[in-house]
Amino acid sequence: MTATDTLPSVLERIDSDIDNAIERLMELLRIESISTDPAYKAECDKAADRLVKDLESMGVDASKRPTPGHPMVVGHIGDTGPHLLFYGHYDVQPVDPLELWDNPPFDPRIEDTPSGKVIRGRGSSDDKGQLMTFVEACRAWIAVNGNLPCRITFFFEGEEESGSPSLIPFMKENADELKSDIALICDTSMVAPGVPSIASQLRGMLKDEFTLHGPKMDLHSGHYGGPALNPLREIAKIVASFHDEDGRVAVPNFYDGVSDISDDLRGQWQNCGFDEKEYLESVGMTEPHGEKGYSTLEQQWARPTLEINGMWGGYMGAGSKTVIPAEAHCKITCRLVGEMDPAEVRKNLRAHVEARLPVDARVVWDGDLDGAPAAVMNTDRPEFDAARKALTDEWDREAVLVGMGGSIPIAGFFKDVLDMDAMLIGFANDDDRIHSPNEKYDVDSFHKGIRSWARLLAEIAK
Amino acid sequence: MTATDTLPSVLERIDSDIDNAIERLMELLRIESISTDPAYKAECDKAADRLVKDLESMGVDASKRPTPGHPMVVGHIGDTGPHLLFYGHYDVQPVDPLELWDNPPFDPRIEDTPSGKVIRGRGSSDDKGQLMTFVEACRAWIAVNGNLPCRITFFFEGEEESGSPSLIPFMKENADELKSDIALICDTSMVAPGVPSIASQLRGMLKDEFTLHGPKMDLHSGHYGGPALNPLREIAKIVASFHDEDGRVAVPNFYDGVSDISDDLRGQWQNCGFDEKEYLESVGMTEPHGEKGYSTLEQQWARPTLEINGMWGGYMGAGSKTVIPAEAHCKITCRLVGEMDPAEVRKNLRAHVEARLPVDARVVWDGDLDGAPAAVMNTDRPEFDAARKALTDEWDREAVLVGMGGSIPIAGFFKDVLDMDAMLIGFANDDDRIHSPNEKYDVDSFHKGIRSWARLLAEIAK
Repeated sequence: MTATDTLPSVLERIDSDIDNAIERLMELLRIESISTDPAYKAECDKAADRLVKDLESMGVDASKRPTPGHPMVVGHIGDTGPHLLFYGHYDVQPVDPLELWDNPPFDPRIEDTPSGKVIRGRGSSDDKGQLMTFVEACRAWIAVNGNLPCRITFFFEGEEESGSPSLIPFMKENADELKSDIALICDTSMVAPGVPSIASQLRGMLKDEFTLHGPKMDLHSGHYGGPALNPLREIAKIVASFHDEDGRVAVPNFYDGVSDISDDLRGQWQNCGFDEKEYLESVGMTEPHGEKGYSTLEQQWARPTLEINGMWGGYMGAGSKTVIPAEAHCKITCRLVGEMDPAEVRKNLRAHVEARLPVDARVVWDGDLDGAPAAVMNTDRPEFDAARKALTDEWDREAVLVGMGGSIPIAGFFKDVLDMDAMLIGFANDDDRIHSPNEKYDVDSFHKGIRSWARLLAEIAK
Repeated sequence: MTATDTLPSVLERIDSDIDNAIERLMELLRIESISTDPAYKAECDKAADRLVKDLESMGVDASKRPTPGHPMVVGHIGDTGPHLLFYGHYDVQPVDPLELWDNPPFDPRIEDTPSGKVIRGRGSSDDKGQLMTFVEACRAWIAVNGNLPCRITFFFEGEEESGSPSLIPFMKENADELKSDIALICDTSMVAPGVPSIASQLRGMLKDEFTLHGPKMDLHSGHYGGPALNPLREIAKIVASFHDEDGRVAVPNFYDGVSDISDDLRGQWQNCGFDEKEYLESVGMTEPHGEKGYSTLEQQWARPTLEINGMWGGYMGAGSKTVIPAEAHCKITCRLVGEMDPAEVRKNLRAHVEARLPVDARVVWDGDLDGAPAAVMNTDRPEFDAARKALTDEWDREAVLVGMGGSIPIAGFFKDVLDMDAMLIGFANDDDRIHSPNEKYDVDSFHKGIRSWARLLAEIAK
């Protein structure tokens, strides 16, 4: 029997086992694997252990692999057919502000909502739920056939939400083991509910963070208000200078390497099923607030940003405190497109800030935060055709090549370090509240996601 | 014997009892009477109880008087001579950031420093140490003479650092009991070390606070970065708009009621012993950062300010979080001079902010924070002459009439509610780090402060 012949049985098995698959996901969601906060190190370790055990139960030769940060999980199975590497990440975002969660973030629930059943909890969508779609597809395939139609390497990391510091060194040290025909990555959204989407371009990212120091100590705003330099006023002036009145980033040379959007691509995106009004309204907006002259999707997929993710200083408690603080803080991420060079962006950003420092102020750049350029996929590969067919069959809707606003530097790393192309297919929806309180993953995304991977294995094995 | 005859014995008694006086102050400093934070309510109560007990031990008819907030302490002693009311506050500022304290803030220590012995701890200068200078002067007088040369009303509050919400109602309800010839207030600094200072004008204050709301929820900066309105960017633009390039407040009509400084006053201040260079350098500044065209002292004493005391939003923890937050916050205090009307300033400030809100943003004004106009003292009263003589005798340096940058609304309240003039004499120094970590009070300020009040009682009783 060919892989195509056996596919109906695999899909049946997925359907009949879906409740068990959900329960397995819930167990993974209960692990508090927040990678950015050192307090959760043991939990990250626990998530890795669980994945190793789960893969082993399917007959995969799996192991937890130490890094200077959180461990990797690597597993291999099969020795015939195309060699596919599947990548996902088991770490999750911090959960604050905790008080905005309706249920505890690590006590996942199945909920009925007007648009269907959802799995609610931190990581349900980003990325534990997505990661498990592929694992469950393989499990079903093995249960029916005793083996897989392709040779598979599983590769899970636990530092995606904190910039993947161990990833490149690990890939370099284990290049022979990881090198495959193509990398499959499940960490992206569908452009609209029910519209299967394959990412053809991803924005890159550059993180930076600084402290603006003014007075030597916190000062009384009566005794020093007037003569004193106030770091909060100065940091506000600097942040306000980052954009011009048209929403364009005003940092000199910021747009070096940015190409404008082709008419062809612009046309495709206009007809890809994206509901701009719904996208904006779902988060309380009536219009796009980015660069003037670009549509919402263009602002999100094809234009770079300079975003403030955190800014603080002075007294933040209840009531009032008449203080002029000694320092103020700012966390920044830039989303990059085209050929923008993260190192150049960082250099230009820092020069822009430093040029605006008044006398008696100084800036300290905090941390050593990585950057990654944007990634453009090699959509001419046959696996992209196979994926479009598999997804179109499962979702009963033409699969589309889309852009992605999020930064998934892993795609670029596979190219740079292992000279492998990557293909990104995800089943998340824009209302999944990833990185926010009350994150969810649609049960439909999970179920049809598993079925999509099963179909894709069959197509690729043809 | 007249009061003047007995003064030498009182001063001797003060000198011989100074170690005990310091120990009594330390006991008061150990009480964590932070008034702005409801968690410390019992500690405020404890401070009031201690003061009542201490006054009673001196023969004062003292009592703790409840208010909707923290209690007042009122005490009376004597029935002959001029009737003086002495005001101080037993509450203290919050202690954050705690990690910048060299010793626990409520475990006071005596330390040797290059400029002499200091008492280190929260409230040592503002205002427990200053308050106790007057109490100790009375204690010594009573110890020597069995009575005081003036009739004294002690009046201590516990809400000065949180805007004194109960003060005016309490003064109104107890007007007959509190009404005296003049109010003495010890909550101010000397213009330079060793230069005795009587405040002739105090800035007023207006507090306000707002939250700028943008998206309905925290958003992922990849999926929404570009189209999303970022409240941190918007609040930075608003804060940056508060001042023009000359450091002048740019809120329309802000300067209504501000008179320029007279040549006479300007001349007095130029020669009052204030060391501008030292004042600036002690806090890490090389030049004044306020309104161009005004000296440091003028910026501090005679010009209004709009200061940001706290600003925050987004992710403030370790590492990075790719979030566009749903909201951003800003705490503001304005220092007022001349005839500026706090209610008008608030109205103008709010209008300025609201005029700058972009589509899809809204502002919520938090809390109901009080304001108080500036206060100008009636320096023609004979008590001012008495004070100048007493202070000049004690400090061996001509006492000066100075302005004050800080807001002590109590002076205005005595005028408005009880139709009493007030006189503000304080012994703090500008390097006392009040409201900051490592607050201190010079032992010399404490000791000579006590002696100053003893001399002043003698002069006034003449």
